[in-house]
Amino acid sequence: MKTQMTDMLDIEIPLAAFSHCRDVVAAVTNAGGIGVLGATAFTPDQLELELRWLDEHTGGRPYGVDLLAPAKLSFTDETPEQLLAMVPAQHIAFMQDMLHKYGVLDSADDYTLNPSTPSVAPDQVSAALEVAFKHPIKLIANALGVPPQEMIDLGKKNGVPVAALVGKVRHAEKQQERGVDLIVAQGYEAGGHTGEIATMVLTPEVVDAVSPTPVLAAGGIATGRQFAAALALGAAGAWTGSVWLTTDEAETDPVVKQKFLDAGSSDTERSRARTGKPARQLITAYHEAWASSNNPDPLPMPLQGVLVNQAWGRIAAASTKGVPGAAELDSYFVGQVVGLMRQAQPAREVVRNFMDGLVEAYSGLQEQLEG
Amino acid sequence: MKTQMTDMLDIEIPLAAFSHCRDVVAAVTNAGGIGVLGATAFTPDQLELELRWLDEHTGGRPYGVDLLAPAKLSFTDETPEQLLAMVPAQHIAFMQDMLHKYGVLDSADDYTLNPSTPSVAPDQVSAALEVAFKHPIKLIANALGVPPQEMIDLGKKNGVPVAALVGKVRHAEKQQERGVDLIVAQGYEAGGHTGEIATMVLTPEVVDAVSPTPVLAAGGIATGRQFAAALALGAAGAWTGSVWLTTDEAETDPVVKQKFLDAGSSDTERSRARTGKPARQLITAYHEAWASSNNPDPLPMPLQGVLVNQAWGRIAAASTKGVPGAAELDSYFVGQVVGLMRQAQPAREVVRNFMDGLVEAYSGLQEQLEG
Repeated sequence: MKTQMTDMLDIEIPLAAFSHCRDVVAAVTNAGGIGVLGATAFTPDQLELELRWLDEHTGGRPYGVDLLAPAKLSFTDETPEQLLAMVPAQHIAFMQDMLHKYGVLDSADDYTLNPSTPSVAPDQVSAALEVAFKHPIKLIANALGVPPQEMIDLGKKNGVPVAALVGKVRHAEKQQERGVDLIVAQGYEAGGHTGEIATMVLTPEVVDAVSPTPVLAAGGIATGRQFAAALALGAAGAWTGSVWLTTDEAETDPVVKQKFLDAGSSDTERSRARTGKPARQLITAYHEAWASSNNPDPLPMPLQGVLVNQAWGRIAAASTKGVPGAAELDSYFVGQVVGLMRQAQPAREVVRNFMDGLVEAYSGLQEQLEG
Repeated sequence: MKTQMTDMLDIEIPLAAFSHCRDVVAAVTNAGGIGVLGATAFTPDQLELELRWLDEHTGGRPYGVDLLAPAKLSFTDETPEQLLAMVPAQHIAFMQDMLHKYGVLDSADDYTLNPSTPSVAPDQVSAALEVAFKHPIKLIANALGVPPQEMIDLGKKNGVPVAALVGKVRHAEKQQERGVDLIVAQGYEAGGHTGEIATMVLTPEVVDAVSPTPVLAAGGIATGRQFAAALALGAAGAWTGSVWLTTDEAETDPVVKQKFLDAGSSDTERSRARTGKPARQLITAYHEAWASSNNPDPLPMPLQGVLVNQAWGRIAAASTKGVPGAAELDSYFVGQVVGLMRQAQPAREVVRNFMDGLVEAYSGLQEQLEG
């Protein structure tokens, strides 16, 4: 195939796969698309190990790295200790009650927050960028607003295209002005942090607004029909995330993986309960508790993360161990396409399905037009 | 063209245009698609006049009729007087204050509600059906849930396909079981009453669930690229509404028409403030007033309509007369595609754009695949 995306990234299939799991990234890259490693959760040393592994397993084929690097963030001036002190006692008590009720925390134990460096600290972003650019990456992406100038400068200097995610036309225009090379227009139906405009409307709007800068469609794309629709809307390719979470390679917690396979498209919601900003995720007892009018409202980002991230580590661990209450709470970010994710498959097979479905949709269109 | 939709309805282009305006309906029908008259607001006598006009202006080409006919509705047992008595005084006072503040109602006048037959009364639906089936309609559609059995029976008896709108897979399955011939899967981004699932996800899900019953995609379709995307998603055609509101033929109030041409995709919201159920519409001062935490919550359907419908008659009239406050409040149902509606055009031209854009999207896909 040939699109602006395949030309820019030197790939065969205009399909980007965002994943925190290097095996998925390598499988998609090796199948002719481009795997993009979500690197936010890694320390610079861990990232170095992941990328070294990718270099060894992709034989020079293109892969990318995605960071969550805010141009500026409200709380960056605060130390981890200061952030901790800003979390209301009422919220900690609410989380503690939840963890007790669902058997994640022994009733004799308190839920106490330990300071841990928020992953969005500027020095960590710089260190991650430094690591990433030591490797032969073919794409650097930013998942949260306008990328820091440092990312754009390093991209230009190294000849690596810089991608950024947007949910509105005016954000796309701003990104283009700042020198971003590839715009990912992410619709309302996507998993994770997402806006209000659906992919069907956002994609052509953004394509028109930033032409000739290439645009990838994101949100609602898990099958070849949706891949074809994204291209028909004017996108140069598709940016996908949710569909990889149920692949054989994905390190998705097994309880969550099964929940995803069982879920319908109505089982997700945009909730502030996990990060403080609206992020689409599977609805579980956790979200129902936060949504109850008797309970506190989620805190703004990044305080909500400071409050709940350590609880999520415990929930996932207990859920994997078979604690029933933990399994009830257990969840993860996923888009409405979860309703179309019905069986675990190797990532390479998912890429093949994307291509087969695309060709089938194209042939169908051909028959309809010529009929 | 040839799809399940063109075969079923004997049309050339698999494009349905929903409109309350007979001129739009006739123009789309005469251009090779199918115009569908939204008949909810007409009395049976008015509907008879509209359909007689359509018969005279479509030369035997296929057109359809759309009703808002609930299988059952919470308040159908109540008389108009009883419904009026259920509207809280606090809500009437709030509307009166709004109408005073924006100069729609003279400050000396009270906002009083007069009983008027709600358009969803069962006897009105039967009378409308009787009128519709006296004419050579080629499609009868229901915009609200499962159609009443009477509609399905009349459709079967007269060989007229029955269509129904759905926003979830399980609603589609229910409609299919009840004997509906054509499912309109309407996504979150659509104007009017709509659900939470975006067209990009809902369309293939519903197609898979009800196959071989044909499915039309609705929501987010105002251009040929989106039409192509709908077909790529597996739909047998597109069901469109918003895009016709800014055509030359549309009787859209001129203030609202201009607002639509100026609006971006972020300027709509799903609000309960007009009908009592979530319906997407252009956000104006009216919606901001209802959304304010100091003000009452919207009432359930149909009480909210009983409360506000007469105010909307006054707002539209005053807005058209040039009362600035009325223009601030003025709004109508419209989808997120309002951001792509940038110039008033004849309806015939819009049909041509749909076809040109579809062919262009198809050729683009062909080049990308063969490149």
